[in-house]
Amino acid sequence: VANKISDIGEFGLIERIKKTAGKIPKNSLVILGIGDDAALFKLSPGKICAATTDTMVEGVHFDLSYTSFGDLGWKVMASNLSDIAAMGGNPMLALVTLALPAKTSVKQIDQLYAGMRALAKKHGVVIAGGDIVKSRELSITLALLGECDPKNAGLRSGAKPGDAVLVTGDLGGSQAGLDLLKSKINPSAPLRARNQKSNLIRKHLRPEPRVAEAKVLASRFKLHGMIDISDGLASELHHLSKASKVGIIIDQGALPVAEQAIVIGKMLGRDPQKYCLYGGEEYELLFTLPPREAIKARALIQKQGTACTIIGQVVKGGQVSIIAQNGKREKLTNQGYTHF
Amino acid sequence: VANKISDIGEFGLIERIKKTAGKIPKNSLVILGIGDDAALFKLSPGKICAATTDTMVEGVHFDLSYTSFGDLGWKVMASNLSDIAAMGGNPMLALVTLALPAKTSVKQIDQLYAGMRALAKKHGVVIAGGDIVKSRELSITLALLGECDPKNAGLRSGAKPGDAVLVTGDLGGSQAGLDLLKSKINPSAPLRARNQKSNLIRKHLRPEPRVAEAKVLASRFKLHGMIDISDGLASELHHLSKASKVGIIIDQGALPVAEQAIVIGKMLGRDPQKYCLYGGEEYELLFTLPPREAIKARALIQKQGTACTIIGQVVKGGQVSIIAQNGKREKLTNQGYTHF
Repeated sequence: VANKISDIGEFGLIERIKKTAGKIPKNSLVILGIGDDAALFKLSPGKICAATTDTMVEGVHFDLSYTSFGDLGWKVMASNLSDIAAMGGNPMLALVTLALPAKTSVKQIDQLYAGMRALAKKHGVVIAGGDIVKSRELSITLALLGECDPKNAGLRSGAKPGDAVLVTGDLGGSQAGLDLLKSKINPSAPLRARNQKSNLIRKHLRPEPRVAEAKVLASRFKLHGMIDISDGLASELHHLSKASKVGIIIDQGALPVAEQAIVIGKMLGRDPQKYCLYGGEEYELLFTLPPREAIKARALIQKQGTACTIIGQVVKGGQVSIIAQNGKREKLTNQGYTHF
Repeated sequence: VANKISDIGEFGLIERIKKTAGKIPKNSLVILGIGDDAALFKLSPGKICAATTDTMVEGVHFDLSYTSFGDLGWKVMASNLSDIAAMGGNPMLALVTLALPAKTSVKQIDQLYAGMRALAKKHGVVIAGGDIVKSRELSITLALLGECDPKNAGLRSGAKPGDAVLVTGDLGGSQAGLDLLKSKINPSAPLRARNQKSNLIRKHLRPEPRVAEAKVLASRFKLHGMIDISDGLASELHHLSKASKVGIIIDQGALPVAEQAIVIGKMLGRDPQKYCLYGGEEYELLFTLPPREAIKARALIQKQGTACTIIGQVVKGGQVSIIAQNGKREKLTNQGYTHF
């Protein structure tokens, strides 16, 4: 039995991936998948193409001591899906680039694809090609392609003074989950405690990108500003403010702080509000709409079973500020994860 | 003055790249470039989208002791352009993922983009986004998107018995150039010798993908089998044979062995025929057409100033064989570069 990918070689690995990546479903807009020089797909009538790419590097984005290959596949798919969602788009196909140390096992690659495929299938995405190369450092890069309405894309530059600012889901759970994973809290604790832990860290390892929610928004509203939360709420608010040339005022009391952030914050002595404002990898949608539309949008998203909260408003100017619990308004620090 | 990318940080680097990557030209099909969650582009009426990705890792695909950052940018763009060309496609936009050690200099990134941009501009490609992450190992991944005719894509599975087999350009120069670069031949030799060397290695460091030639083929002929030569002629012939379920017979005497392969082969004591058959990174087109069409296609490509040679024919069966100079027919070894 082949254990390492070096036992089956590059082309053996590609043959195996052809199987594990899954077939192209009937009626798919994807015409040609894995196996040629490029993948081919068509767009629905009147649509344009949305293209994004996101990469994860071992030791920078994930640690294999607490991330399974399945988690890794899921997460890199989630981060790309979240970008297409943030345009109000419909994701269609992915190209997967693996940079792999020769010692990587065939089973690990199977698990990686199982994780990617589980989330891809949920959102109708076909794994249609990619590249596999040898490297010392493990990394995975996805390019994700989808389609969106040319007249209704969610842009960072679309926020308008007077808009309400909304966010899906709750915030702070991912970073709190990461801190719990990094902490020395015994992972071989009794079953109930482990399940509890696993609930707490699910948001970090298996985030749910808001693709369905974004589709509802795009189909029912004229989109204004939209961005996904990958570097943290504060950082994304600054991106929106800069690109749209507007100010934003956030009401700290309205922030949907994740229960995990509160529980883990208590366990580790950290501030849940900081998790909520500065924690990355949330993959929630941050968007703006005129107040009446915002209220309708919130109701529609909640109807889908996803939390949705109005957390502030767009104003003229260029400053991002926050009204603290004590009523005092202050500048919101532009702080989040940055490489380099 | 900022020297290292760690001096300007991730967002400083993105701002700089926004400038060095160039603007979206007027009348471009690219609607939204760098700076949002995804790039947006439209297709020409009736076209479908072609998507490919190709990555290069330091120490595996290139060695910075003889590859400049400009060469690297050019080459990764070339390898992706070549894949879109091999579909008979028109390349449109690129997403660039950089995995960078923190010590990388700002100047190196400028040069990398200058190299990519020089080749991109030549073929009407817009650099429209990407991702930048920290890593220990330098690597660059492009996703390249283009459009092609849904009824006339060049596929690996399209070769038919009776077709002639053609190749653009000449072969063996890239691998020979690499061997010369790796050899200890003094790079500080007199100017004439250095220029000579630089001509010899140009094919390796600054290959010209056959985008224009592919467009002519797609616009004038019903395409049969088509693939680009990235892993070596022999390896690609086997890919064609397998995907098309056909046999292929190559006439060794007809092979367009590159002058560089002959000159460098002599210098280093290597066999130019082996360079031609097994050398990778040629980025030439290998394609099949019915004999009459093949002769017309050859003339049209030669008219563009690019060599084009009929090197064999497609037959029934599944074997790839070569008729040697002595008239003896033998199986062609499936040998080329493989990772792992």
